[in-house]
Amino acid sequence: MEFLEELRLMKEQLKFEGRFRLPKNFSNVVLSGLGGSGISARIFQEIYSKKPVSLVEGYEIPDFVSPSTLFISMSYSGNTEEVLAAAKAAKKRKAHVVTISSRGLLEGYGDQHVKIPRPDLQPRSSLVYLLMPLLNSFGLAEPKEIRESYGLLSGLDGNPEECYRHARSIARSDAIPVIYGSFPFRAVAYRWKTQFNENPKILAYSSSFPELNHNDTMALAHTYKKNEFYFMVFASRDKRINDRIHVTEKLTRSKFNIINPKGTSQLSRILYLVHYGDYLSYKLSSIRGINPTDVSYIEKLKTMLKKPKEGRKA
Amino acid sequence: MEFLEELRLMKEQLKFEGRFRLPKNFSNVVLSGLGGSGISARIFQEIYSKKPVSLVEGYEIPDFVSPSTLFISMSYSGNTEEVLAAAKAAKKRKAHVVTISSRGLLEGYGDQHVKIPRPDLQPRSSLVYLLMPLLNSFGLAEPKEIRESYGLLSGLDGNPEECYRHARSIARSDAIPVIYGSFPFRAVAYRWKTQFNENPKILAYSSSFPELNHNDTMALAHTYKKNEFYFMVFASRDKRINDRIHVTEKLTRSKFNIINPKGTSQLSRILYLVHYGDYLSYKLSSIRGINPTDVSYIEKLKTMLKKPKEGRKA
Repeated sequence: MEFLEELRLMKEQLKFEGRFRLPKNFSNVVLSGLGGSGISARIFQEIYSKKPVSLVEGYEIPDFVSPSTLFISMSYSGNTEEVLAAAKAAKKRKAHVVTISSRGLLEGYGDQHVKIPRPDLQPRSSLVYLLMPLLNSFGLAEPKEIRESYGLLSGLDGNPEECYRHARSIARSDAIPVIYGSFPFRAVAYRWKTQFNENPKILAYSSSFPELNHNDTMALAHTYKKNEFYFMVFASRDKRINDRIHVTEKLTRSKFNIINPKGTSQLSRILYLVHYGDYLSYKLSSIRGINPTDVSYIEKLKTMLKKPKEGRKA
Repeated sequence: MEFLEELRLMKEQLKFEGRFRLPKNFSNVVLSGLGGSGISARIFQEIYSKKPVSLVEGYEIPDFVSPSTLFISMSYSGNTEEVLAAAKAAKKRKAHVVTISSRGLLEGYGDQHVKIPRPDLQPRSSLVYLLMPLLNSFGLAEPKEIRESYGLLSGLDGNPEECYRHARSIARSDAIPVIYGSFPFRAVAYRWKTQFNENPKILAYSSSFPELNHNDTMALAHTYKKNEFYFMVFASRDKRINDRIHVTEKLTRSKFNIINPKGTSQLSRILYLVHYGDYLSYKLSSIRGINPTDVSYIEKLKTMLKKPKEGRKA
């Protein structure tokens, strides 16, 4: 499928009614997911904080995982090796394991499974499919928020020109994108980084306010090669954060390209920014003449890891 | 104090016996800290996983904070505004609040206070002072691990040549450092990033295996300006991770500078790597002719944020 077509499908994923039953008693939530599938976990962690939420981004699970843990394994393909290993370990500890995938082995690993209806997308284009079961099950998405989000995503589908403008600026100087978020957009900043990695296939970095005021600030004032970077900063509704953004920009004589999230609800603003970055990174790949859907190296890596490994240093 | 002198003091901080009493019942741990003081929180999160551990890096605290939360506020200066705001909010929710600082307002904010005996260091040079109360109180540091760590830090103090070699390589091409960690060294990778920001005052970035295999890998294979970056990768004891490191390097035709952590215990290996990065970043500041202890812009920022802000966009 064409990548643009995938992007236009994202709003339709808001209608996905997949959900799971919350166990009667659980005292913490652990989400396991990597890459594209892990972004929805990170967004959930920004939105939901009624119980401790931990992320697992490897093979191992934390010691506290127990029968009182709601363990949610997320993998669009259903075959991510780290996610399968973690789900297996969680099951062994008698955690309540929920699996979310479109297909693959993961389906058989849990107590409940949510099946995503389309298996033919890029994992990173299934962000809303992976997010909706979390929002639906925890009661975090009101119909009016969904409607607002649908409208905002449609708006970008119809007119992505603002996003494209940044892509052209980045392309002009082969700049390295740096994205500064802040709560509740820290996961979105990371999403943009990964979209720059996978679509136009360039290095990119993200960080967040106020943390970056304790380290990056000194570098912004003094570093070499600052002109090689293109800084994009998400505006915040928190005055303290916006003050920090503007003071940091002025003090360090930086050029911050401010991105203003549209929308009134938190969810809409998050998804608007996600989609903004989708179009921006798509456009950059098109300017670079790079196929955004090519992830051959990630696939090759998986194959090479499965081969016998004689003679390789460990 | 000279920065080198501060570095040589770090091993002595291992003798700090500061500790707090764990409350009888607590079901989760929240650590609040930013910048230099936040690194120890991140390291603790790598080491301890018997209960869910969440990090707070801003003014707001998660909804789940309650009387069953052990809330640990960490600020070397004791005056970090985000940490003070978060501690106040946690107290309001009746969490058990522990404060760790060398001085400052924070001392009065909690149920228990641990006082760090020296108030005259750079916050980032007090990493072990901030870490020890956590290790002591949770029983995470055996005397033999402390002894091993002391020996390894002393070793680097006596001969930091290997660290300096990387500093010279970075300086030769004004490269941007990129550090790839993996569990239990993800916090250390981030520490290095922040030390590059604050000591030689250059931009730097960190990420970790296996997560980066799901995004950076494509960029490593195709990005422009790859030669502008200097990649440093911490070797792992986990064969699956080391396989990933070597396959990624080969597949994407990258030059990974592998850093081998010395030591047998997890703690020693973590602290060895921390100190390695301290010397590396110190040397780079010295080659650049930059004063590593100058954090004037961070101070200026704090002053500017306190001023009345007429006419500034919010």
